[in-house]
This record gives sequence, structure tokens and C-alpha cells, in this order.
Amino acid sequence: MRKTESNFFYIQPIVVSDYLIFDNNYRAESHFFHMQSEEMYMNEQYAELIEAAIAAKKFSYSPYSLFRVGAAILSEDGQIFKGCNIENVSYGATNCAERTAIFKGVSEGVKSIKAIAITSDEEDFTYPCGICRQVICEFGTEVDILLVNNKGETRMSSIKELLPNSFSKETLLD
Amino acid sequence: MRKTESNFFYIQPIVVSDYLIFDNNYRAESHFFHMQSEEMYMNEQYAELIEAAIAAKKFSYSPYSLFRVGAAILSEDGQIFKGCNIENVSYGATNCAERTAIFKGVSEGVKSIKAIAITSDEEDFTYPCGICRQVICEFGTEVDILLVNNKGETRMSSIKELLPNSFSKETLLD
Amino acid sequence: MRKTESNFFYIQPIVVSDYLIFDNNYRAESHFFHMQSEEMYMNEQYAELIEAAIAAKKFSYSPYSLFRVGAAILSEDGQIFKGCNIENVSYGATNCAERTAIFKGVSEGVKSIKAIAITSDEEDFTYPCGICRQVICEFGTEVDILLVNNKGETRMSSIKELLPNSFSKETLLD
Amino acid sequence: MRKTESNFFYIQPIVVSDYLIFDNNYRAESHFFHMQSEEMYMNEQYAELIEAAIAAKKFSYSPYSLFRVGAAILSEDGQIFKGCNIENVSYGATNCAERTAIFKGVSEGVKSIKAIAITSDEEDFTYPCGICRQVICEFGTEVDILLVNNKGETRMSSIKELLPNSFSKETLLD
Repeated sequence: MRKTESNFFYIQPIVVSDYLIFDNNYRAESHFFHMQSEEMYMNEQYAELIEAAIAAKKFSYSPYSLFRVGAAILSEDGQIFKGCNIENVSYGATNCAERTAIFKGVSEGVKSIKAIAITSDEEDFTYPCGICRQVICEFGTEVDILLVNNKGETRMSSIKELLPNSFSKETLLD
Repeated sequence: MRKTESNFFYIQPIVVSDYLIFDNNYRAESHFFHMQSEEMYMNEQYAELIEAAIAAKKFSYSPYSLFRVGAAILSEDGQIFKGCNIENVSYGATNCAERTAIFKGVSEGVKSIKAIAITSDEEDFTYPCGICRQVICEFGTEVDILLVNNKGETRMSSIKELLPNSFSKETLLD
Repeated sequence: MRKTESNFFYIQPIVVSDYLIFDNNYRAESHFFHMQSEEMYMNEQYAELIEAAIAAKKFSYSPYSLFRVGAAILSEDGQIFKGCNIENVSYGATNCAERTAIFKGVSEGVKSIKAIAITSDEEDFTYPCGICRQVICEFGTEVDILLVNNKGETRMSSIKELLPNSFSKETLLD
Repeated sequence: MRKTESNFFYIQPIVVSDYLIFDNNYRAESHFFHMQSEEMYMNEQYAELIEAAIAAKKFSYSPYSLFRVGAAILSEDGQIFKGCNIENVSYGATNCAERTAIFKGVSEGVKSIKAIAITSDEEDFTYPCGICRQVICEFGTEVDILLVNNKGETRMSSIKELLPNSFSKETLLD
């Protein structure tokens, strides 16, 4: 693995859960939104984060939708926490994978989130629902959102793109 | 009132709840998030919708946050339904003004939403939280979102702008 | 209709939505969870409330569960508000019929609830979920809960029975 | 420590977080509900569970209510998971301590819950809200609920007592 700049690496093709995730010189592009960097090489932490999200899906409790989701957060201090969706017969008390991962981290002392990875069994990318976007922005305004489909292909977005003009904590706390 | 184009009107200055809301030649543009409210043409239905949102705030049940919100939806078939935020000691069972208005309409037969207006007691515009954005997009992909501050100034956005790449019903129903 | 005591009436058999709901001498008792519905006196308002709950089911938006629920509240000042369940693709943003009815009433000025009726398409009685019980107890500690099955049979309970030792607003407001 | 019967122990006074929790021959009594056993000696696992709930409160994220709650679950297979309340500016996206603990366990493979302990900074016992009761009963019909106040005094209840006639998963899955 050859270092290219401070935080990023050229990475060799890696296999995660039987899927080829990254080719050499992997370039994350957001076709619909302006990315901070047009050429972003995936760093090692993000590869690990994606692997965690895929693994997290295993414990999905989704007897009502049969729609399995896995997620993982990377905290600002470098820890990874995994989560799956956990449904409830009432529907309203259902918890998404993203929130499960966030709640796990926060309950262990995480104060701020750097990135979150999300995956399902679908070929379409599974974007976070509005509730999860709301919870993400409570713990970071610069959170990268990594989407992974069932082929291991990835797309990258951010909480600013996915929840612009958020109803944020300054509203009540200032 | 002089007609200018298909759906819009030049409107005279009108007073809603003691606030001057619209000047002549008010023009609605929603290319991005930053609006030129000074150049917004407002149609008659939207003026009525904003008035309804402001009136709806009256019944806000917000003993925990003391943050009053009012909202109103305009259904595709031209009906207006008002809602306020209704808090709960558990916090999690709290319902926002936007959802109250939507639930009222849907429970009376509304299938699709054309626009929603939102207001609070703040000078800053109060944008819908992520949960409400999620519920809005269940009932329309082309919903206009009208924000009104405590001075009666307005800004216009859309659900597409505020919840891009939504986790939408096609995900589970297709 | 012959008056028997302050609030209750002997009522003639009435037909609601093609179901025979009340026989003469129907008497409401709620000592425990299992009711003797044969000995239940039902007053006129409660008969109307049950009819409203059954009618409310018509607008149920439940494409994910296909489980239709209708509810109606009777406010302390004698008004009736109807609600249906309104689901969301995120599941978590789903709203039950009971809460829809309550939010409608509160947003129209209701401060306190006297009773709520709940029905579904099932022969088993459909009890309110925990979220709805939490919202009910925000607006009354003495709320009667009327359950109606698909045969029009009724059972009566109360919020005190269904959410004992509730996490109540005094916890945060005192 | 002297064994008395299959699962229970006479325990010596133990100090948890500076509070004296159990005296010798500690007897859990439910004054308001009929307990399965009128004389229940606290077992070792339950003492550890209560200690975990008190410790969990440390990471409470509650900037809006300033009401800190800690909880911990004991899974059927003997694992303990800790949770705290994690609030959100939207209020509705708030997660209670009980659910945080449950979601953590389930996302690590827990299928069934044996007991949950709950504590806050109050002298009054903090009972679970309706949402949490709904989530508890998704993962067990025989869950013991241990309440601990700020003096380390305990009270014991059960999900059957706190959410009778629950809206349960058989409703949708059968």
C-alpha cells in the first residue's frame, strides 16, 4: 500500500464479504451533488467502515419488511460501531440501522461522527431515511455518508447534501 | 387582483395576523436553497396556506420546549388542513406541526400534497425536521415548502431540495 | 330512550356499519382486563364514538402492513375526532390511528380526552401500541379505552389499566 | 455468599456507585401489582445489571430535558448491554436509555431479553415510557423490569404488568 497524501492511500483491490469493493485508484463521485473533492481516494478507515456495515446486516431484525439493512459509524476519534435495523410490530417504534450504530457509539462516549456507511441487500443504493438524517446531524455537520449496494459498489454523499437547512440543535439550545 | 400568468397573480399587500406578508410583484423562485423572496410571486392559495399555518400555531402543545410551531398543507385537490406541534413527556412520541397537518388531511381522504407552510415564533426560518421531510415525501415528490418567519417574511423550497435521494416507498412496494 | 342514571341510558339495539353493536342493558364495567360486555351499559356518546372509529378506518393508509385501523376520541367537552393509521416507508415515521385522532383533536383545541375507541379488521381486539398509550396518557389519566372487533363486539379498558405507572408529564414539568 | 435456592443468593450489602443497594435478605416487593414471588431475593446477575444501568447514565446525551437516564438489559444467554438516553432537537427522534440498551444487544445477536434495569437522577422511580415498553415486549413476554432510584433503592415489576394486552408481533406475523 503506497501512501499518496496525508490521510489517503492507493489501495489494492480488497474483497469484503465476497464482494470486490475497491479497484485501484477508486474514485468516489457524486453525480448529483457537488463533492468537496472530485477525486477522493478511499482511505483505509473508510474501507474498514464499509466492511463493518456489511457485517452488521447479519443481525438485522426485520420480520415485517424482510428488508435487511446494515450500517456502521466512524467516530471522530477513530472508533467504529456497527448497527442493523430493528423493527417493531407497531412500526413506529422501529429503529433503523443507522440510528442503531449511532446510539451504540454515543452510549459508549462518542461525541461526534466523521462518517457513516449504509448497505442493504438491494442493487439500488439505500439512502438513510429522514429520521436517521436528523439523528446524524445531531452529532456532526460534516458527516460523510457512504452508500454500498449488494455488488459492493459505493457512492459517497454527506449530511449537508442529504439534509440541507437542517432543523438543528442551535434552534433550541441557543 | 390582476392575473399575470396561468397560476399566479399580482397580489395586493395583505395583512395576516398583523404581519405584512406580501408585497406586489412577489415572485416565487426555487432554483436552489437560497431564495430571492423579494421577487416571489405568490398565488392566492399559497397566501391562504400561510395564513392557515400562522393560525394553527395557536393550539401548539409544547410545554417541554416552549417552541411553538404551526403548519398547514394544501392538498392536490385544493383543501387546506392545519396542524401544530404536540409534544410528549417521552420526547420520542412528540409530533411536529407538519405531521399533524398531514395526518389530518390523509385521515380525511387526502392522497397527495401540493404544498406545506411552516412557521414558528422565531425570526430564523424554521425548516422541517428529517422525520417530517420523510412523511412529506410519502405523499408527494413535488411538494412546495413555504417557510414563514415571525415577521411574516417567506422563503420557498421543495421536498426534492430538502430530502434529496429520499428513502421512498418504491423501495418497499416495488 | 329511557334515562336510568345521570350519564347512562338504556339504549335500543343499534346497527353500526351492518353490525349489531349494543343490546339493551349493555353495561360498562372495567374492574380488570376481562370485561363482562353483556353487562355493559353503553351511553349514547360511546355508541357514537365506536361508530366514528369504524368509519375512520376507511381512509387507512397502510400499504406496508395491509393492517387497517380506525380510531376516534371523545374530548372532555364532547367533541369527536376520527383517525386512521398512516404508515411510512421508513416504518419509524408511521402514525397509528389512535394518535392521528388525538393529534387532530389537540390541534383543534382539545385539552383533555374522555375516551378513545379503536377497531381493525380482525376478530381479535386490537389494543393500542405502547406509543399510543404514552400519547393518550399525556391528555388524560382517566381515559376509557373502547375496543371493537370486526364483529362489532366491544370490550372496555382504561389507560390506567393499559399503562400503569406511566412515565408522566409531572416527571419533567414539576 | 451463601446459596439458598437454585437461582438466588443471600447477598452481602454491596456498594454500587457510592450507593448502598442491597441489604441482607433484600426483598423486592411490588406494592401495586401482584408479583409472581412475594419474597424474591435478588440474584447476582440482577445486582450486576443494576450496577450497569447506573454506570450507563454517565454518557446520557440530554441537552434538551437535562433528564439523565441509564439502563441495561440482561439477555437470556446472560450478556449485559448498557444504554443511555440520546435526545434529538426534533424531540421525535429521541431515543430512550431502555431502547438504546436493547438495540445494542439485538445488533450483537441477542434474540430474547430476561430483564432490564432503569435508573435516573430522581428519587422517584423512573418507569419506562410506552415506546420502550412496546420495544421490550418485542423481545420477551416475561421480562423483569428493575427500577432503581437515586438512593439505590429498587422496585421490581414486569413487562406483563406494565404493558398488559400488548399489541404484539403475533398480530402481524401469524
